[in-house]
Amino acid sequence: MKLQTPKGTRDLLPSENDKREKIYSKLREVFSSYGYGEVETPAFEYFDLLAEKSGPEVEKEIYSFEDKGGRKLGLRFDPTVPIARIVASDPSKPKPIKYYYITRMWRYDQPQAGRMREFWQAGCELIGTKEPEADAEVLKLANECLERVTDNEYIIKVNSREISEAIADEVGATEEEKSELFRSIDKLDKKTRGEVEEELKKKGIDTSKFNEMLEKIDKNEVPEEARKNLDEVMEKAVNLGVKKENIEIDMMITRGLDYYTGFVFETFIKGKEEKGSVCSGGRYDSLISIYSNSDEETPATGFGLGIDRLLEITSEDEYEYKPVDFYVCPVKEEVREKAMEITSKLREEGFKVDIDLMRRRLSKQLNYINSSNIPYALIIGPQEIENEEVTLKDMKEGTEEKISLDSLNEKLGELI
Amino acid sequence: MKLQTPKGTRDLLPSENDKREKIYSKLREVFSSYGYGEVETPAFEYFDLLAEKSGPEVEKEIYSFEDKGGRKLGLRFDPTVPIARIVASDPSKPKPIKYYYITRMWRYDQPQAGRMREFWQAGCELIGTKEPEADAEVLKLANECLERVTDNEYIIKVNSREISEAIADEVGATEEEKSELFRSIDKLDKKTRGEVEEELKKKGIDTSKFNEMLEKIDKNEVPEEARKNLDEVMEKAVNLGVKKENIEIDMMITRGLDYYTGFVFETFIKGKEEKGSVCSGGRYDSLISIYSNSDEETPATGFGLGIDRLLEITSEDEYEYKPVDFYVCPVKEEVREKAMEITSKLREEGFKVDIDLMRRRLSKQLNYINSSNIPYALIIGPQEIENEEVTLKDMKEGTEEKISLDSLNEKLGELI
Repeated sequence: MKLQTPKGTRDLLPSENDKREKIYSKLREVFSSYGYGEVETPAFEYFDLLAEKSGPEVEKEIYSFEDKGGRKLGLRFDPTVPIARIVASDPSKPKPIKYYYITRMWRYDQPQAGRMREFWQAGCELIGTKEPEADAEVLKLANECLERVTDNEYIIKVNSREISEAIADEVGATEEEKSELFRSIDKLDKKTRGEVEEELKKKGIDTSKFNEMLEKIDKNEVPEEARKNLDEVMEKAVNLGVKKENIEIDMMITRGLDYYTGFVFETFIKGKEEKGSVCSGGRYDSLISIYSNSDEETPATGFGLGIDRLLEITSEDEYEYKPVDFYVCPVKEEVREKAMEITSKLREEGFKVDIDLMRRRLSKQLNYINSSNIPYALIIGPQEIENEEVTLKDMKEGTEEKISLDSLNEKLGELI
Repeated sequence: MKLQTPKGTRDLLPSENDKREKIYSKLREVFSSYGYGEVETPAFEYFDLLAEKSGPEVEKEIYSFEDKGGRKLGLRFDPTVPIARIVASDPSKPKPIKYYYITRMWRYDQPQAGRMREFWQAGCELIGTKEPEADAEVLKLANECLERVTDNEYIIKVNSREISEAIADEVGATEEEKSELFRSIDKLDKKTRGEVEEELKKKGIDTSKFNEMLEKIDKNEVPEEARKNLDEVMEKAVNLGVKKENIEIDMMITRGLDYYTGFVFETFIKGKEEKGSVCSGGRYDSLISIYSNSDEETPATGFGLGIDRLLEITSEDEYEYKPVDFYVCPVKEEVREKAMEITSKLREEGFKVDIDLMRRRLSKQLNYINSSNIPYALIIGPQEIENEEVTLKDMKEGTEEKISLDSLNEKLGELI
């Protein structure tokens, strides 16, 4: 029998999971301070719903299956689709709707570092408002999330569909050509210019338009009229506290422009730009109406933050896992009950404390403490009981000191 | 297109999810104070692994499917199997291993109230120690978890395989008959005694043994020799702080006795006993060796707590969802930037604050606040800006008062 996780998946053991939970707690604090409420949707959806956004060819990229009732289902691969379903299914919900999520999803493609088949994503959706202050809030949130969860410096690169359309118009691109051109520009972080040109030629698209667009982007000639909205969003984001140097217009950001209808952004860890964006989003005013079958648009804006990629890129951020701060060592069986009692009292005080549950002798207990990265041992023997004290051993320093039970809470409180 | 969740699943919107997250936080506090580390395992496992514990007929009860590489997979339906896989795959891991989980699982059966196809479970596993203090810790943990997450009174009913085997021996049951008898006793909370007897007869088992066992259980004649271990576990649990009146021996608890090898328990909310156990567990010393292909047993003990059932049974526990405590209302566009600034400052202070993002007029903003269950509005107009104050409106009372910006933090801090 294979004792492995299925291909492209992995276990998150405490040392990994604790790091993530600490990040999640911070994200929850940030999102909830802005009035976003956490939603959790089923792991799978009806396949038709998943295909509605991305077309039936999405089946190649997801886990799909039939349940025993013959219903075709798919593991969700995108957090926005279920949220769009929720919003579309209840049009009377008071707007704006502010949702966030911290959850896992599944894609079926070749596993790579930071890109597993089972992956975690956090993010938020702000639905029902088309105002620039909504987009600014989303930018501020992305900024605040990153500030809280990594020590690294990062840059938010913004663009907008309006700007990209304006340059495409300037080079005379037709509506059909535009989305191919946007996609081609987006590919340039992974492919050479020559390769991308070849692909365009195969599709019968005039590469001169592609090259002219790149020239304009290179000169950073942002069309004045088209940038007004984006400027307003950026200005409001700065007023909300986003540092000016953390945000810049980059017309190369054309990701998902067949989906995004307004401002769009990607976020890069400085010095690790080649690893790709850790946090991306924008305004998508057309998506929800696909589900609501309505001509009326439901404006929406938001972003997603890839937890696995973020952790991979920021792996040198300071972090150390310890299961508990203190480990109580009863030296003999006769002192076990008293040691348990001391342990219980410390837990009641809010300390994280473990105690030997294997009736091992002291040396073995100390080995376990060392191998488990627990910083302090509290050694309790008959002598300690008699003197109403414990022996505190600093595992790193190897030093020992006696502490009276009376001052135990106070003394241990100083250590953590 | 169906805008529904797949059969047996549902969305957890903020009002429901927030309640759960508060419970999860409390559970995390409890588990981590005892040195348990949280693990998260993939949503699906290789089917063979899932079938190893429960046999291939488990396929009827789970979501199983093939991935595009032809690998047979199944959505996990039991948290212990993946944890047993982890432990079996790395025999050198220092013991004891203390894991907890708060996660979702999937079963394929007829959905009922509190029993959905997608469901959440929390729990812990303590692996590597056979000592009674390990079982006592598990009992204490179950007790502490329930104490923290519900206002309801509950009772932990304990039993042990030893005790059940001893009574079965007393009535002369063979080894083969024993597991049928245990299962029959367990069925009596859902079926009549007559129905269960019929089933036993069909299997060719002498119902007189069944009736004799029930008589002994009814008289509460716990075999003296067999109860020693359980008594020791209970005594230690009481020393750890479990209230005596919260725990009792009940020989009717025979759930999973083909799986549990030692003490076993179920937990019932008082007055809701007919809803079933919300928290069940016990010692299972044989499971891990199934996976490790070893003759050597890896002792283990633990419990699971059904989140959905718990929430269903304790639904009258006090709880109210509010997305934020304060909602800032800019009365005119000209005061928006100043209102945004005040909002940002409050968020930096740790307050949960929302602000109008739809440029609505005040009356509409107040409607939204009411429909969203937000307790306080902070109204900001030109007059307030001039006077360096805000108007605080208590939405429940309908009262208003002016608060100077200088004393805003202090005053709002008193309200929450």
